[in-house]
Amino acid sequence: MNNQKISTRSYKGVRDFYPEDKFVQQYIFGKMQAAAEKFGYEEYDASILESTDLYRAKSGEELINEQVYTFTDRGGREVTLRPEMTPSLARMIAKRGNELVMPTRWYNIGNHFRYERPQKGRGREFWQLNADIFGVDGLEAEVEIIGLSYELMKSFGAVNDDFEIRVNDRQFVQKVFDESGLDSEQSYKMSKIFDKKNKLTQDVFEEQVGEVLGGDAGNFLNKIQNVETPQSIKDVIEKLNNRGVDNVVFDLFLMRGLDYYTGIVFEVFDMDPANNRSMFGGGRYDNLLDIFGKEKLPAVGFGMGDMTIFEFLQSRDLLPVYKPSADLYLCIFDFEYTDFTDKLAQDLRDQGLNVAVDYSYAKIGKQIKVADKKGISFVICIGEDEVKKDEFVLKNMSSRDGVKLLKSDIVAKIKQ
Amino acid sequence: MNNQKISTRSYKGVRDFYPEDKFVQQYIFGKMQAAAEKFGYEEYDASILESTDLYRAKSGEELINEQVYTFTDRGGREVTLRPEMTPSLARMIAKRGNELVMPTRWYNIGNHFRYERPQKGRGREFWQLNADIFGVDGLEAEVEIIGLSYELMKSFGAVNDDFEIRVNDRQFVQKVFDESGLDSEQSYKMSKIFDKKNKLTQDVFEEQVGEVLGGDAGNFLNKIQNVETPQSIKDVIEKLNNRGVDNVVFDLFLMRGLDYYTGIVFEVFDMDPANNRSMFGGGRYDNLLDIFGKEKLPAVGFGMGDMTIFEFLQSRDLLPVYKPSADLYLCIFDFEYTDFTDKLAQDLRDQGLNVAVDYSYAKIGKQIKVADKKGISFVICIGEDEVKKDEFVLKNMSSRDGVKLLKSDIVAKIKQ
Repeated sequence: MNNQKISTRSYKGVRDFYPEDKFVQQYIFGKMQAAAEKFGYEEYDASILESTDLYRAKSGEELINEQVYTFTDRGGREVTLRPEMTPSLARMIAKRGNELVMPTRWYNIGNHFRYERPQKGRGREFWQLNADIFGVDGLEAEVEIIGLSYELMKSFGAVNDDFEIRVNDRQFVQKVFDESGLDSEQSYKMSKIFDKKNKLTQDVFEEQVGEVLGGDAGNFLNKIQNVETPQSIKDVIEKLNNRGVDNVVFDLFLMRGLDYYTGIVFEVFDMDPANNRSMFGGGRYDNLLDIFGKEKLPAVGFGMGDMTIFEFLQSRDLLPVYKPSADLYLCIFDFEYTDFTDKLAQDLRDQGLNVAVDYSYAKIGKQIKVADKKGISFVICIGEDEVKKDEFVLKNMSSRDGVKLLKSDIVAKIKQ
Repeated sequence: MNNQKISTRSYKGVRDFYPEDKFVQQYIFGKMQAAAEKFGYEEYDASILESTDLYRAKSGEELINEQVYTFTDRGGREVTLRPEMTPSLARMIAKRGNELVMPTRWYNIGNHFRYERPQKGRGREFWQLNADIFGVDGLEAEVEIIGLSYELMKSFGAVNDDFEIRVNDRQFVQKVFDESGLDSEQSYKMSKIFDKKNKLTQDVFEEQVGEVLGGDAGNFLNKIQNVETPQSIKDVIEKLNNRGVDNVVFDLFLMRGLDYYTGIVFEVFDMDPANNRSMFGGGRYDNLLDIFGKEKLPAVGFGMGDMTIFEFLQSRDLLPVYKPSADLYLCIFDFEYTDFTDKLAQDLRDQGLNVAVDYSYAKIGKQIKVADKKGISFVICIGEDEVKKDEFVLKNMSSRDGVKLLKSDIVAKIKQ
């Protein structure tokens, strides 16, 4: 062993989860899981290690080189730490092929890696819920996925004023571009400008639109200003209203960067004026299996990252209060009562209680203080009296009250 | 997009988890979590990415070079995919330092990576429960950790005959070596031979012992054959018996490869004659914080891998039967009933039911077959009658019976 001191810091841009952090993360994951399963989604998973080819095919060399953790293993294989779930999902769906019974509803809560400068809300490792439905051609799939996003927000305690769901239809946008005489290169550039419109002033936006059109932007700007909500979006909004989802609006400029969307796209916006931004979203992407040489498969999905939702919950004071796993802390007056205490602890565990024991044999007040610092709700101290009489004083740590109980009444009292 | 077909295989040595696989994994994780929390352990986590220095300090260059995934990131940092949890745990404990209230009980269920030839029960990515107690000097800590391992095995449905807990004391072994006149190099070599004794014939074992002693092994072999159970082990076994853990035995040859154990070590053995082997184990390692220049901290812990326990459960027929997340499948006769169905589905979800909907509008028999293939227990079909009368036929997919119900009775009937 080497005497040089090692740093206790984590690797750059990733997080340590101390119990109070993990508690919050598990709360978030629990809500994600519950919402997905309420809609009948099944959990799947893949390794974070994938062959680099899987990403190269879809994203091109650029993404591979710059934002992704890629290395060569000792056997000469190029390996990538997954930056997102969809390619792994596509691989698994393609592998199983016709064995899958449609509609297939899958979800995953997994970690992903991006090599980028760490900043608020963006880490090099982040977790994300992905929920996807396959095999449904109609708008029912979009309505369900948006409905699931909405229910998830509600389950976190958000109210309608806290967030807004914005919806667009990429096919409709393409139709608008086509009708305005844009060629495919102009369409591509225009969609990139639409995508970042929220970050531009109106002047800069109009200037950039003019550049793409190579001349006067007036007609085009006039057309898009007066564009009417397309039927597809009207249908989606109506069906969502029918389900009680009524904070949904049409947004012609919503693109969602990724090129693979083929129809309806949506994003959930934080309506806090101080932090108005897209939190997460999704849409339809029917060409998922292209790279595996498989035919079209109807697919609609969304992804929600853990860091964004954490910030939302924090700003709305919706994060849960930490609760330790132990329901009861047993303090021991002296060595000779340990066997008795261990047996009692195990009896209570067998009855469904989570029980931790203090083996310090320190002054009893100090042991009780340990329970207090850990936030454990109940304490019982074991000494001569308890062992002799098999009767216990259950101390409630918030009220500071103590009640005398028989062993058989401890569990019921704590659970009540 | 590129037209070359990409392979649907996962990266070598890692696993895809289809819903039926993930279900089993979550069952295993759920049991691990429940057992750890019953003893008051708190969940923590760290990233799988760690600075390579963290492992180099403890393990030396050899482990870094051969069995570990290590690469250099785009910023020139050496990064390692964690091969085990303990170094990350030590780093987090050292970072928090005196803020931690002792005793500290922590657990983690995380994935780890080793570059090795994939084989039965060993993958390049595996998951492991780690549970550790800090700040307890006495054998109470060992007894608790072994007791927790035992309760975990029981919670999986294992009975005492299925497994055996073997215990040793590294300090006692050292004492035996010292009394036999072994120097420190001989002691080290001898402990390696003890460690692999189970894989050697008695002749080869004796020959290797002789080689280390550089002469006649008779006296030494005689001594170890007649060695009596040391007091520490007697105490541990007695205290475990007191808790009802009675399949514990002393095993002088149990070493547990890792050099960092400093006292009691234990392993849980599969007693299946066809597959008799160590499944998992742990022990005391009080020098955990050495590499951070921190003082001794009493620490006892164990780790249980997901692949080994999976095989154990499979061989004992203790794996759970797959159950999909949806409790109820709603089939729809025609488009016009979709809004009604979606509303019903959402009502039932709000009452705590997991509900999936079929949007195929295929023949109703085909939709019911989909529910059957997915293993969903209950089906309701929605058509003109249901919409008009607000009365439903709940079909039980195993008994094939149908019962007529009002909407308000659906949840109770399914939960019963």
